[in-house]
Amino acid sequence: MATQTGGGTNLRIDSDRLWSTIVETAAIGGTPKGGICRLALSDEDRRVRDWFAAAVRDAGLELAVDAMGSMFAIRPGRDPARAPIAMGSHLDTQPTGGKFDGVLGVLAGLEVMRTLNAAGIETEAPLMLINWTNEEGARFAPGMVASGVYSGEVDMDFAMARTDRDGIAFGDALDAIGYRGSEPVGRRRFAAMVELHIEQGPILEADGLDIGIVTAGKGSVWADGRVTGRECHAGSTPMSLRHDALCAFAAFALAAEAVAREHGPDGVATIGVAEAFPASRNTVPGEVRFTLEYRHPDLGHLDAMDAAIAAAARRIEGERGVAIDIEKIWRKDPVAFDAGVSAAIGRAAAELGLGSRPMTSGAGHDAFFAATVAPTAMIFVPCKDGISHNEAESSTQAECAAGADVLLRTVLALAG
Amino acid sequence: MATQTGGGTNLRIDSDRLWSTIVETAAIGGTPKGGICRLALSDEDRRVRDWFAAAVRDAGLELAVDAMGSMFAIRPGRDPARAPIAMGSHLDTQPTGGKFDGVLGVLAGLEVMRTLNAAGIETEAPLMLINWTNEEGARFAPGMVASGVYSGEVDMDFAMARTDRDGIAFGDALDAIGYRGSEPVGRRRFAAMVELHIEQGPILEADGLDIGIVTAGKGSVWADGRVTGRECHAGSTPMSLRHDALCAFAAFALAAEAVAREHGPDGVATIGVAEAFPASRNTVPGEVRFTLEYRHPDLGHLDAMDAAIAAAARRIEGERGVAIDIEKIWRKDPVAFDAGVSAAIGRAAAELGLGSRPMTSGAGHDAFFAATVAPTAMIFVPCKDGISHNEAESSTQAECAAGADVLLRTVLALAG
Repeated sequence: MATQTGGGTNLRIDSDRLWSTIVETAAIGGTPKGGICRLALSDEDRRVRDWFAAAVRDAGLELAVDAMGSMFAIRPGRDPARAPIAMGSHLDTQPTGGKFDGVLGVLAGLEVMRTLNAAGIETEAPLMLINWTNEEGARFAPGMVASGVYSGEVDMDFAMARTDRDGIAFGDALDAIGYRGSEPVGRRRFAAMVELHIEQGPILEADGLDIGIVTAGKGSVWADGRVTGRECHAGSTPMSLRHDALCAFAAFALAAEAVAREHGPDGVATIGVAEAFPASRNTVPGEVRFTLEYRHPDLGHLDAMDAAIAAAARRIEGERGVAIDIEKIWRKDPVAFDAGVSAAIGRAAAELGLGSRPMTSGAGHDAFFAATVAPTAMIFVPCKDGISHNEAESSTQAECAAGADVLLRTVLALAG
Repeated sequence: MATQTGGGTNLRIDSDRLWSTIVETAAIGGTPKGGICRLALSDEDRRVRDWFAAAVRDAGLELAVDAMGSMFAIRPGRDPARAPIAMGSHLDTQPTGGKFDGVLGVLAGLEVMRTLNAAGIETEAPLMLINWTNEEGARFAPGMVASGVYSGEVDMDFAMARTDRDGIAFGDALDAIGYRGSEPVGRRRFAAMVELHIEQGPILEADGLDIGIVTAGKGSVWADGRVTGRECHAGSTPMSLRHDALCAFAAFALAAEAVAREHGPDGVATIGVAEAFPASRNTVPGEVRFTLEYRHPDLGHLDAMDAAIAAAARRIEGERGVAIDIEKIWRKDPVAFDAGVSAAIGRAAAELGLGSRPMTSGAGHDAFFAATVAPTAMIFVPCKDGISHNEAESSTQAECAAGADVLLRTVLALAG
């Protein structure tokens, strides 16, 4: 891994130029509340891809599109034998998404290319900017499917056959917008990848820091749960004779919360969905159905959380005479990002005088799949109140520019 | 209050005859699962009323019907100047009701009348058997409306204007089945009232006892609640920065449960309805909506529970940075039953060699309103697994007969 600082230690991206691209592309699928609705492979996606293709050509970059529709913009290096250093993220959004999630990583990469062009800097290794198809998975589930196929961890036939709510297949939608590329997926290998993204959480804001150096992606377990107790009359059944599914569920929810705290600060556990049945005001609930998910960036901790949550369920079953069933429906192991790339990010932030901290990513990103094929890490910048997947999502021009400067400096260090 | 044992200490009701009336009337509105659907003022209600009217006339009793449709069957006493001793309950059921709830109290009263007739016993005071209209409130809410009007605590115009789901008014339904009686409501005063009922709870079964001597009816508070926290990303928000409405709700549910246990064994608290929002698997809930009800037979305890639950909500708000709003929508103070009538029930059970215990009624009954106009108490008999308001509701022939024997002996003691 190259570690030297690239040429031009005083080089900075053009903050206004970067911001203007954020504002300009936000109009493509822009919503009245200031967000973006730009679902993968929609006409809005086509329009932003056309904008991006024109911008990279204007910047003198080569553009390739692979069979999953992912777009690769290449800036040659002095040594054509070296594999490129990649940047990138995604231009698709949630149905009520914000202006920064994914978009920042792509447009900051474009700004890096433009800055190097303006400064006349040639890197040793080529640079590559990627717009991954369908990161969000909002229209075609699951998300991160193009980076998944790229890395070989997701089957391409599976991805092509995903359908949206109207029954339209991913492959047909890709053809409809004219972005099924001719290149085989995975052909454009890279030597390293750096993804700049908004944090989508509140840590940097709470700590008053500019940059998160993402060293790992949390592994996660998703489960469907059910507490089964016994329905009875709320007036005439003494507390001592109840098998109250709701109270047992409450004890379980607090136990899961306690497990996450014990594995803090990186461990999290969330019950997002919960409903009691039969949902009568004067009947003690006989059943509660809920979802549970828990995450940790360390495999040992994730397994320990798994065991502790199961043990809590068994304990509460015994104490309260109920059954607690937890059916795991999905598990993804943690992703460890590359120490060399993380270190380069940390040095770049320090050289720029920016406050930074190592952190983990709780949300999933294309960088998780990229990390399986090449050294990879992520740069986080703060977003207001940690709000994301929401039209109110907000980062300042200065925050975005700081992230793009770190990205510039990091890829220069990696590309030489 | 008369306390002497009535004539015929060896007198017993006819268990088979009582059981045959339960089986016979259960066919009126009988359901495939062995329960009864006999909503107030329905055609099934008319048919069981016609059956009851014929039975009381066959027993040589006078029948009066008041303007609320409540039916009063009178057996004269030696002293016509004395007010009658009343028995009774209700013949209407829940939509998926059982064969015993209400029915047992009316048919056991009929069996008492038949037993006295067969034995040629004349009491000092007259006896009166009441079938109260619309105890359940399942078709026309609220329930106990006829005893409510009788006691003067519910306005008759209000009761008459209640409508069912089809918009049919109570008064029109009463006319349609021909049971709007000519007597003013409240004219048929009584000196005391005894209501025999299934427990609708698990206590007698758990204690292996035959008879509950009901000394009080629980007061209750009904409320709608809402916990407001803050939605955030389940992957990227550390536990320490969350304002998780679901976990705060869980803490509140356990606090309410603890308050009820502290005021046990008579205190109960129940959260019957609970749902988290926005109900997304990977979003920390920003809101939980729920219902809360709590009951106690002692006013001081009920008020103390009220204060303790409110204090718990304030504590959790402070600890977790959430808002917990509890809007009380209904409150009914506890009903103290008459010590003399309760004592008569206890003596009757003892003379019959039946195991008994004092207890409170968690469910509401017509006896609650009766208690506001005359000395009143209730007799409970066990029901299997405490199940009621359910087609699986079940008491044995022996359990019903034991209750009817206690009823017989109690009214003889009270009537002289």
